[in-house]
Amino acid sequence: MSQLSFYAPAQKSRNASVYQTTIFPKGKKITNNNFKGSPWLQPLVASDSLNSTSVGNVTFEPGARTNWHLHPAGQILLATGGIGYYQEKGSAKRIFRKGEVIKCPPNVAHWHGASPDNEFIQIAVTSAHKGSTVWLEPVNDEEYSGKAKP
Amino acid sequence: MSQLSFYAPAQKSRNASVYQTTIFPKGKKITNNNFKGSPWLQPLVASDSLNSTSVGNVTFEPGARTNWHLHPAGQILLATGGIGYYQEKGSAKRIFRKGEVIKCPPNVAHWHGASPDNEFIQIAVTSAHKGSTVWLEPVNDEEYSGKAKP
Repeated sequence: MSQLSFYAPAQKSRNASVYQTTIFPKGKKITNNNFKGSPWLQPLVASDSLNSTSVGNVTFEPGARTNWHLHPAGQILLATGGIGYYQEKGSAKRIFRKGEVIKCPPNVAHWHGASPDNEFIQIAVTSAHKGSTVWLEPVNDEEYSGKAKP
Repeated sequence: MSQLSFYAPAQKSRNASVYQTTIFPKGKKITNNNFKGSPWLQPLVASDSLNSTSVGNVTFEPGARTNWHLHPAGQILLATGGIGYYQEKGSAKRIFRKGEVIKCPPNVAHWHGASPDNEFIQIAVTSAHKGSTVWLEPVNDEEYSGKAKP
């Protein structure tokens, strides 16, 4: 039998930007030290023995970001709302907007998050069959602002 | 380097239902015989040697549906718009609504598609490391309507 997950229907809002980005719930605030600012997570699909892929809906409030980290089997990010950032170690920071998709290669350190004045919402698709996420150092303000050399 | 895909920004529409479901483009009409009616596909992420997971945005116009089929490594379906159906061989047909998530087990025959009067939009997450999708017989009208015994 498949797993069927039910969520509350999207709520209509007078703010069109919010209205467009409420397909999946915001979930709960992430409180661990692998993030800075206010990130929220709604798990959508758990990894299991038959299919190691997990899916989560992540909402970064303005200024929120991950620490640097890497995924042994890579990750797929689908931007579903707002304006955020994405950077791989050694490359320049990029703007990451609603409707764009990024495929992070395995074992490449990177970070992602919201821009300073806009929230950012993404669906993260991660496979665990080669191991769990490896968390690294925080993204400092020079890196976040793009003033640091990649 | 990661792959960054750019799509046209979502277009505002006076129809709220459409407005909410235009994060990713509708893409091109699927013309092969593995579907009935009018399904559309926008590939978002391709499988490659480093990460075998592919992601596609599928829009089923009202009445459109897949044939019965199975995935050797399973599949994850994220409903992002409209009202559709999902059925596994041997189980009853279910309504599948925006905001719900289904994890199809590996090698279990199933079909999905739109309901008769509503379009249905889904993000499909599929891993190819155990082989490609196996396509089976069409979903007949008794199965589609739910009148057939599962």
